[in-house]
Amino acid sequence: MRTALLQSSGRPGSVAENLKVLDEAAGRAAAAGAALLVTPEMFLTGYAIGDGVAALAEPADGDSADAVAETAGRYGIAVAYGYPERDGDTVHNSVQLVSADGTRLAGYRKTHLFGAFEREQFTPGRQPVVQAELNGLTVGLMICYDVEFPENVRAHALAGTDLLLVPTAQMHPFQFVAESLVPVRAFENQMYVAYVNRVGAEGEFEFVGLSVLAGPDGVARARAGRAEELLLADADPALLAASREANPYLRDRRPGLYGDLVRP
Amino acid sequence: MRTALLQSSGRPGSVAENLKVLDEAAGRAAAAGAALLVTPEMFLTGYAIGDGVAALAEPADGDSADAVAETAGRYGIAVAYGYPERDGDTVHNSVQLVSADGTRLAGYRKTHLFGAFEREQFTPGRQPVVQAELNGLTVGLMICYDVEFPENVRAHALAGTDLLLVPTAQMHPFQFVAESLVPVRAFENQMYVAYVNRVGAEGEFEFVGLSVLAGPDGVARARAGRAEELLLADADPALLAASREANPYLRDRRPGLYGDLVRP
Repeated sequence: MRTALLQSSGRPGSVAENLKVLDEAAGRAAAAGAALLVTPEMFLTGYAIGDGVAALAEPADGDSADAVAETAGRYGIAVAYGYPERDGDTVHNSVQLVSADGTRLAGYRKTHLFGAFEREQFTPGRQPVVQAELNGLTVGLMICYDVEFPENVRAHALAGTDLLLVPTAQMHPFQFVAESLVPVRAFENQMYVAYVNRVGAEGEFEFVGLSVLAGPDGVARARAGRAEELLLADADPALLAASREANPYLRDRRPGLYGDLVRP
Repeated sequence: MRTALLQSSGRPGSVAENLKVLDEAAGRAAAAGAALLVTPEMFLTGYAIGDGVAALAEPADGDSADAVAETAGRYGIAVAYGYPERDGDTVHNSVQLVSADGTRLAGYRKTHLFGAFEREQFTPGRQPVVQAELNGLTVGLMICYDVEFPENVRAHALAGTDLLLVPTAQMHPFQFVAESLVPVRAFENQMYVAYVNRVGAEGEFEFVGLSVLAGPDGVARARAGRAEELLLADADPALLAASREANPYLRDRRPGLYGDLVRP
């Protein structure tokens, strides 16, 4: 399945502008044969917009969700996008996956919040594994800091995730995460991982780009630099099956020895 | 603590020759200021020696253990060495840590056996985390394939391991493990990892060297090539403490969400 990674910070603070950027990228991605477009974390609103996060938060079925669904349906491409999700009085750091016919397939709320800013703005999610079927692949959803915890990605592997989508807002000096940790996650769990980052300065942060689609062999199928880019790469079910046969990590696990990992 | 990584396959099949190589390396390492010498997996006997593994297996307090203790005491350097351990009718793929005064501090039996050869030769261990205190650091023991499972290294981090010793017999085409996975383990768990490999052809295997001491920042403090080498690098408790403060992975975990990891 050809996957498009939209490495862009859009226009922080302007939902309308970001919906335009998303629409334009969806058109280009679909024209290039992609079946799925993935944005960075909080793409709909911007990340470093302070209280703007809460002010611009929308429910999972809000106006922006409708706009994304319309874009997806018009180009015939699935879209996974990051946004602040309002649920009554709480706001979550979320990603939503919309199918190529505009159906909302799945929504995930970031479970592992990063730093003081996120803890002020967001309520952490409580469901670790969220998945949907897409073009014969089991697609999983996760956000930024979540992927740095091996436990989270392992849970996806055990649940059968083939392609893990990770919208992110990864900043200097954590390039090591994009460059090394993400490919290792793909290898140790025998899955594809699409890690899609913001770029450039925003508030106090400097986002580092380096978006990547990593394969189950730990090799990047495509790797962005630090500028805006629409990155295209394929997730291949046949390669995934062969790689899993050659690297039987899930079969060789000994869950009876891992009790320490779940102690409070 | 200066640590010496003995990247060498010694003389497969000859325990006496390997004890000589170990003794010579201990002398060089001590002279270079190292407080600890680590060998590859199964260094005492060789790895690809078929049934020789069982024939040469010794108990943890056997003659070779005495010889290693004598070497350690003579040079005043701790030694962690890989060997086949006999325990009654069973044989384990083990590593033993001997202190600089020749005391046996800890023994670990590989819990995650790799491939058909190891499953034929060895009984897997049942204790996932084995540690000892050495020069103010908590040192952990693990072997080769064990480190590829994030669960195992995480358990060490939760138990306070500062420096994880990983004797290995890592073969082509798994260079990715040495080059990328091991540094990521060090980073995601905020510890030092000493990964010490065999080199060159042995039986059906081609060992790839690439031994490394990786720091909690994911950066290699020293990295070997593919030839025999005595690699020297330092594990710095002050850097470890600062790095843990800046990368609070253990504090930010949510063990209540990780239940899937321990299901049989």
